[in-house]
Amino acid sequence: MQITILGGAGFLGRKVAAQLTHDGSLAGQKITSLTLFDLAAPLPPAGAPFPVHSVAGDIVDLPDDAIPPGTDVVFHLAAVVSAAAEADYELGRRVNLRGTDALVDACRRLSSAPGARPPRVVFTSSVASFSGGQSAVLADDARQVPANSYGTQKAAAELILADASRRCFLDAVSIRLPTITVRPGRPNKAASSFLSSIIREPLLGLSAELPVPAHFAAWIASPRRAVDWLLHAAALDTSAIGESAGDSGATALDRGINAPGISATVAQMLAALEVVKPGASALVRPVADPDIAAIVGTWPAAFAPVRAQRLGFAPHESLVDLVRAFIADDLEATRRERGLPD
Amino acid sequence: MQITILGGAGFLGRKVAAQLTHDGSLAGQKITSLTLFDLAAPLPPAGAPFPVHSVAGDIVDLPDDAIPPGTDVVFHLAAVVSAAAEADYELGRRVNLRGTDALVDACRRLSSAPGARPPRVVFTSSVASFSGGQSAVLADDARQVPANSYGTQKAAAELILADASRRCFLDAVSIRLPTITVRPGRPNKAASSFLSSIIREPLLGLSAELPVPAHFAAWIASPRRAVDWLLHAAALDTSAIGESAGDSGATALDRGINAPGISATVAQMLAALEVVKPGASALVRPVADPDIAAIVGTWPAAFAPVRAQRLGFAPHESLVDLVRAFIADDLEATRRERGLPD
Repeated sequence: MQITILGGAGFLGRKVAAQLTHDGSLAGQKITSLTLFDLAAPLPPAGAPFPVHSVAGDIVDLPDDAIPPGTDVVFHLAAVVSAAAEADYELGRRVNLRGTDALVDACRRLSSAPGARPPRVVFTSSVASFSGGQSAVLADDARQVPANSYGTQKAAAELILADASRRCFLDAVSIRLPTITVRPGRPNKAASSFLSSIIREPLLGLSAELPVPAHFAAWIASPRRAVDWLLHAAALDTSAIGESAGDSGATALDRGINAPGISATVAQMLAALEVVKPGASALVRPVADPDIAAIVGTWPAAFAPVRAQRLGFAPHESLVDLVRAFIADDLEATRRERGLPD
Repeated sequence: MQITILGGAGFLGRKVAAQLTHDGSLAGQKITSLTLFDLAAPLPPAGAPFPVHSVAGDIVDLPDDAIPPGTDVVFHLAAVVSAAAEADYELGRRVNLRGTDALVDACRRLSSAPGARPPRVVFTSSVASFSGGQSAVLADDARQVPANSYGTQKAAAELILADASRRCFLDAVSIRLPTITVRPGRPNKAASSFLSSIIREPLLGLSAELPVPAHFAAWIASPRRAVDWLLHAAALDTSAIGESAGDSGATALDRGINAPGISATVAQMLAALEVVKPGASALVRPVADPDIAAIVGTWPAAFAPVRAQRLGFAPHESLVDLVRAFIADDLEATRRERGLPD
């Protein structure tokens, strides 16, 4: 099993690499090599029981050794994220769309070799490819109507990967990730930053600002569960995607999967924080921010991810477990990275 | 009113140019100039009461004079059609996606000038961006799940144009055209060719082959009605797109409109032919073609185009009027072009 991670230096890329290193196998097959690709050569995970190659480059001019012959699985996590794609239209289009085209072309070259199979491509699409707002509960066949350039580029990339799958250049599964919470590191300029800050900062003993009312609901998932889903997508029998009573052929052509996140209000998230660390939620101060409220207000607050459940994607853990997972996986590293005392 | 037609040498481009020449105005405003762009410089329509500029070039390297400063409306009809986009993946991607990006960039440059307004872009999307088959009756918010590369590229281009509208680079209306019937000219390799041939050929005194059963239903529209819709889209108040009881904000972000075509079985089309020219339908011979039946079998046979009706797009004429429109508009020209006796 030969694997590539595009965006291997990013937050999820590093977590996927660490999990593969821990497991040593994927889909019941031993991993024989792992290639990590990013703008700067990613650091290989420590103690990998297989060779790890780090490749640096621009995804639009994807080097041949980023996806070497014999590659079985490509995790396509390389992206310009929402705030950056909104601020710089060309950059978002270049990386999020042209980068996906470059991946398609690389897989097409590989799969055209005698005896070669189309590589599985696991793509991280996003809840940002939908709109709908607080009252939404989106079905699996909901129309993707993005309210930002990032979501537009993700939805268009999904279409391109589904078509490339139909043409047997590759074999894609696009996971539409919820807002990932709790992210490690620092607060950033993403509109969704507060959904991590209100948990992470109090656990570090720091205050956090809450720009929306406590009844604001969001569709979220833990980094741990996101990694589970990406690995499950890598092992999935894609011929099963369309199989279900009443499904039309259209379902088989659509490689996008609404991940089984969890719909939680801010109040529920803070209550879970309180269970894990009593008193911590007092560090969260309401500071209304109409600009942020307007942006996050377009995101659908809930999905009914029936298809993902049928295909065996793990259901989400409780909010309390989500908080505990952050403490177990990322709290210490975040403290060190930010130079905070224990 | 300054207008550009990209794809001005094509079948619909020439019809739109002819109608603008006839009308002399659009949306109640006098036309001051018309620019026709295509791979080869399009022939200007005869007798235009305004200056007509013909520009030749590659849409991906769109020349500045294709969309000159002050352009109010761009009809974006340039495309690699379905059979060609399926046969040549790069060509379809290049023209149908990169070409749309080039249009976005040109409009963005124009609209960033002081006092400039984002030009209206009228884009021809397609029923091929959906699947669903014979039993489908698709609602306005139906998910686009294309079953071919052409439909994929059209759906992705719609997303890109909607986002460019949100960003005020341009102001798009994407009309998802039904299969256009009756097309003038000759039978071609398009899977849908028979939907025109079974009317056109008998009217020319020639035989035609019917590759599907008589109960096969298709979502069709006349060239005349397609031109009406494109002109209506050019004059539409786009702020009205999202206005309707129960509409979410998502509707306003979606610039795609399912055109009000007509769902007709082959038997109904042949009955209309019989009304106009008794005995003609005897020239249509059933010759089953499982390959063609498989392709056209994925296309949705019907839509419920409520949004288009609300926005004032003209409802479709009867099948008998569709046959008569071909005789009035295109029969003689087709006869001449093909060197057939009167």
